[in-house]
Amino acid sequence: MKLDALIVAAHPDDAEISVGGILLTLRDAGRAFGIVDLTRGEMGTRGTADDRAREVAAANAILRPTVRLNLGLPDGRVAVTIEAREKLAALIRRHQPEIVIAHHWDDLHPDHAACGLLAREAWYLSGLQRLAGPGETARRPKRLYHFLGHVPTEPTFVVDIGRVFEEKQQLVLCYASQLKPDGQTDTGAHLLFGADILQRMETRARFFGERIGARYGEPLVHKGPLPCMDPILG
Amino acid sequence: MKLDALIVAAHPDDAEISVGGILLTLRDAGRAFGIVDLTRGEMGTRGTADDRAREVAAANAILRPTVRLNLGLPDGRVAVTIEAREKLAALIRRHQPEIVIAHHWDDLHPDHAACGLLAREAWYLSGLQRLAGPGETARRPKRLYHFLGHVPTEPTFVVDIGRVFEEKQQLVLCYASQLKPDGQTDTGAHLLFGADILQRMETRARFFGERIGARYGEPLVHKGPLPCMDPILG
Amino acid sequence: MKLDALIVAAHPDDAEISVGGILLTLRDAGRAFGIVDLTRGEMGTRGTADDRAREVAAANAILRPTVRLNLGLPDGRVAVTIEAREKLAALIRRHQPEIVIAHHWDDLHPDHAACGLLAREAWYLSGLQRLAGPGETARRPKRLYHFLGHVPTEPTFVVDIGRVFEEKQQLVLCYASQLKPDGQTDTGAHLLFGADILQRMETRARFFGERIGARYGEPLVHKGPLPCMDPILG
Amino acid sequence: MKLDALIVAAHPDDAEISVGGILLTLRDAGRAFGIVDLTRGEMGTRGTADDRAREVAAANAILRPTVRLNLGLPDGRVAVTIEAREKLAALIRRHQPEIVIAHHWDDLHPDHAACGLLAREAWYLSGLQRLAGPGETARRPKRLYHFLGHVPTEPTFVVDIGRVFEEKQQLVLCYASQLKPDGQTDTGAHLLFGADILQRMETRARFFGERIGARYGEPLVHKGPLPCMDPILG
Amino acid sequence: MKLDALIVAAHPDDAEISVGGILLTLRDAGRAFGIVDLTRGEMGTRGTADDRAREVAAANAILRPTVRLNLGLPDGRVAVTIEAREKLAALIRRHQPEIVIAHHWDDLHPDHAACGLLAREAWYLSGLQRLAGPGETARRPKRLYHFLGHVPTEPTFVVDIGRVFEEKQQLVLCYASQLKPDGQTDTGAHLLFGADILQRMETRARFFGERIGARYGEPLVHKGPLPCMDPILG
Amino acid sequence: MKLDALIVAAHPDDAEISVGGILLTLRDAGRAFGIVDLTRGEMGTRGTADDRAREVAAANAILRPTVRLNLGLPDGRVAVTIEAREKLAALIRRHQPEIVIAHHWDDLHPDHAACGLLAREAWYLSGLQRLAGPGETARRPKRLYHFLGHVPTEPTFVVDIGRVFEEKQQLVLCYASQLKPDGQTDTGAHLLFGADILQRMETRARFFGERIGARYGEPLVHKGPLPCMDPILG
Repeated sequence: MKLDALIVAAHPDDAEISVGGILLTLRDAGRAFGIVDLTRGEMGTRGTADDRAREVAAANAILRPTVRLNLGLPDGRVAVTIEAREKLAALIRRHQPEIVIAHHWDDLHPDHAACGLLAREAWYLSGLQRLAGPGETARRPKRLYHFLGHVPTEPTFVVDIGRVFEEKQQLVLCYASQLKPDGQTDTGAHLLFGADILQRMETRARFFGERIGARYGEPLVHKGPLPCMDPILG
Repeated sequence: MKLDALIVAAHPDDAEISVGGILLTLRDAGRAFGIVDLTRGEMGTRGTADDRAREVAAANAILRPTVRLNLGLPDGRVAVTIEAREKLAALIRRHQPEIVIAHHWDDLHPDHAACGLLAREAWYLSGLQRLAGPGETARRPKRLYHFLGHVPTEPTFVVDIGRVFEEKQQLVLCYASQLKPDGQTDTGAHLLFGADILQRMETRARFFGERIGARYGEPLVHKGPLPCMDPILG
Repeated sequence: MKLDALIVAAHPDDAEISVGGILLTLRDAGRAFGIVDLTRGEMGTRGTADDRAREVAAANAILRPTVRLNLGLPDGRVAVTIEAREKLAALIRRHQPEIVIAHHWDDLHPDHAACGLLAREAWYLSGLQRLAGPGETARRPKRLYHFLGHVPTEPTFVVDIGRVFEEKQQLVLCYASQLKPDGQTDTGAHLLFGADILQRMETRARFFGERIGARYGEPLVHKGPLPCMDPILG
Repeated sequence: MKLDALIVAAHPDDAEISVGGILLTLRDAGRAFGIVDLTRGEMGTRGTADDRAREVAAANAILRPTVRLNLGLPDGRVAVTIEAREKLAALIRRHQPEIVIAHHWDDLHPDHAACGLLAREAWYLSGLQRLAGPGETARRPKRLYHFLGHVPTEPTFVVDIGRVFEEKQQLVLCYASQLKPDGQTDTGAHLLFGADILQRMETRARFFGERIGARYGEPLVHKGPLPCMDPILG
Repeated sequence: MKLDALIVAAHPDDAEISVGGILLTLRDAGRAFGIVDLTRGEMGTRGTADDRAREVAAANAILRPTVRLNLGLPDGRVAVTIEAREKLAALIRRHQPEIVIAHHWDDLHPDHAACGLLAREAWYLSGLQRLAGPGETARRPKRLYHFLGHVPTEPTFVVDIGRVFEEKQQLVLCYASQLKPDGQTDTGAHLLFGADILQRMETRARFFGERIGARYGEPLVHKGPLPCMDPILG
Repeated sequence: MKLDALIVAAHPDDAEISVGGILLTLRDAGRAFGIVDLTRGEMGTRGTADDRAREVAAANAILRPTVRLNLGLPDGRVAVTIEAREKLAALIRRHQPEIVIAHHWDDLHPDHAACGLLAREAWYLSGLQRLAGPGETARRPKRLYHFLGHVPTEPTFVVDIGRVFEEKQQLVLCYASQLKPDGQTDTGAHLLFGADILQRMETRARFFGERIGARYGEPLVHKGPLPCMDPILG
């Protein structure tokens, strides 16, 4: 089934935390979108793979993506391999999204950076016919966006998520295992600068929202010039 | 009268050469736009101020701008003064454009760079009520774009001008005085790298057009993030 | 009297909004600091020059700066002139701060940008003996920092202001005239992206605080390398 | 045999399309140059490996390189491996070029980017004696240039190819299989932004040529400072 | 044993050449520090692995690191593998340094660049509990610095090493095998731009020292903002 | 008289300190070059205007420039005015240099930055015929280079000055007044980071020389791409 957008994220909650507002907006607009999680998050400090699978199901119940897939790559060990990028390119060819949205390739978390690079390479390769399987048609999505993360890059766009921000908070609350310490060995050391996820999410939404005069926003980066989308100039 | 867009350019032909395709597109879409030329081009190597005034009139007959004004600043000597930027800010307040489009502040031609900086400062100041005259209301345009020129900056947007490119060529041909040597003392030394204007315009239109998969394009730069304008994400 | 730090800001509330937390920290540490406001804010959309003078007095009662001066430059029309920069250089020589902190030279508000450039030039010139008056000794402060503003530049340092953040809010509340519309002609058009000052201040403090693992922070930019200040390497 | 220049490209036509003008200029100047193609282009959307081998032979008949080699890496799957970079370093040591020219390491095509990085690493390693085989002498080429591609980086140099541009077009026409759709499954999806190769080549040659006042040019990037080559300062 | 600082370098002399002054300063301040050399330098143009082991022992006698380890990765072939980065992350967890200092990830020597990236990834991963072995506690060092090398990046800090510079020269003299040609096949081709190590080290120490008003200095890069360390603002 | 190169510097010793090696190389190659000093250095901490005039004469005796001019702008107060840049443009038109070399526009010394910007604007304007006086012909020099100073910008070229470095030291010794404190009020505060001029000059010459494998070098910056000057590709 043809998608409007495909999100490629490293761990089961990354898509929701980074672009949950965009996803809810797509849902409300009746757009078809899919999510590919590269790993099951089994090496995360908090929660088991089972916990996380249940959490994904709960998030899906809210988001209602057309497809949600998991590539089953090893958590904490995502590598930019030929095999992984071709699997991803095949998914792109199969679902024919207009837009791909993924991590930024310079994120400090190695899995996130690898995901960003895999998505960038797969995006390009999806246009090569001879890499496609029999009966598949090569087709490169029109645009590739990256969400920020632990990357100070200036965004190209900020998406106003003011109307869905409260629901985004509900959405992220589905990932309950990630939001509080998991027993005594959990020192919070996995959190960059000890940042509480919900708090950090709200701060960033407000900070980027203010950059465009909105109450809450989610930033996106595009590499290279875009076709003009200004409604006056368009 | 309220405008959709206001173009601020240093010399009478700069708007047409840089964003003539955008202007024709605005005209075809029934948008109201204005042009402010900072100088009369009286120090240009080619043509007299009278020649250039006639050429502007011919171009206006094609473009049909809502207003076309001339600030009468000295050609070759445009300076970033408090007085000039306040005149420009007053014009912005009076015509209330949604968008301002001007030269880039780092252009190699000193008049162009000064124009870019004047526009940037006037754009900001147009929102200050106490700089406004009696009865005027402060109002800062929503967006400020810069066109390239002799600046290698990567554009944010490229506007597809394929449908109007031939008419853009006609438009620039109105400035006949600029397109051929003006007697024996005209060595073409004013042209950066000796570039023929029509040829250079076409090369750039094709080069930037190809960046977005279009036949011809005009590049625009925006400083800082934009509200998301992607039709799928919007 | 010799100062530890001198803050140079364009309008009477800019120092408090941008580095109020740093100022309160300096006060609590018994450091001597001064503030130079370049203008009286008389062209601000909100409040009269008298209102603002009273507000400065209230803020001073909290901050207790060693000196607070006003250069009396025209608000909305701060220009980078030889005269203004020499006045500022003379102030620097007289008060001998170790550190100067000012706006960033690329701020979108023309007064802020001019202030940042004036401070940068005055900082350099303060070391030239023959620009000094009789009996004055040339002396360039050790470090020059810039605060951000409407500039997306990545900061060099973020100062943890968690302990004084609530008091910073009180400090900014001294500038009551700036915090609500001033009659019917005040459309809020002067605020970039319509941002409410207190809200924006809190969002930024949280955003930059999180970059270093603190609850609230204020960002500073230094141009060029610093002597190492890491307590382990020092 | 000792070479003046060695070109390292990913697919059999990349060298010709990117630096064909430089190669023809080297030929006309009696310089010895070699070309290493990393792959046989067997996964290209258009043409078989046999077609492409014939096309290379035709291009060689025009270019007359001293050597043209093929590393036989898998097309569409070029990876930056220790083995591949050492093969390339061995080639560099054997042919002792003064200059190496390769793709840019940030190209959007994964094979191009991998080629750029392989060339950069091999260039460095060619100077290490213990990586050299018996009887081989370590020797690092004096300069490493990169050609652009789908990378908006500003070039260091533009080579004037005006005298050979028409022959460059003939040269690229040797790669006939690449210039038109190859049956019904060829949607042109492999072409970034759908750009026709010959058209795109001409547009870029004109765009970069104009940057230096020439009719046609090919851009090169050098990382870090060069020894001064200005004929006046030299 | 808990360390103040851990240095991660590619070859046995890289730590001393790049940050020997910092190491001597740490020693003099009674700080506990460790060094991890990734390889034994067995592919270096000069000296055998045995020579280099003796040289490391001599340097250790001066530096007195708390630990000095060798990961035994293949010299000239350091790769950014999951296995190597997890070994390094385990070392970081075991020794719990406050600071990690490593090569820059964009160094021209492939081993140096790989080391910089491995250190960056291992630094991040050291905070993930489930990558830790039984009984180990996840803990990410507070700061990660990079030393320059063949990278023109502007440093964040320059450490004043004036008091220990002469001893740093003695320290580097321990690596006698690296300082003179090793027989007839040693053409010096491994040295970038033919730079003599001692001479280059002194030039750089003076150049970076002058950037902060010191006689000799060593530069460090930090990615992203630091908590403020200015003694006045702190 | 037609020049090969024209150097534009702020104070009487800036040309020698920054590009003295290049000037000696030009002299040895029989090239015609001129120097324009913008000021007489009368506000310098050390030496009187008379001292400095004698020093310039001594330096000229070594350098033998075709012309050495002084614009008589006020030292410490060089401003980027229309008048100053037109004087400079007129000089450029009169002497018709192939190359202009000036300070960098982002230098920390305000006079240096102003000089860099004046030279950049005058370079452009020299090609405008109607700014030329009667009988003068517009002609823009082919290339504009900037020397570094207190600017960390990466150079485009480094000129090998190994053969003339000792004579450059003699040349700078002509400016004896600048090389030692001038009485009790001279605290050296004018020197950025307290740098001794001769020492700093040597350090920089060695540092930049090593970047290209030379013993001593002087760095130059060019904005935008150059025509290819590589002797192999040329």
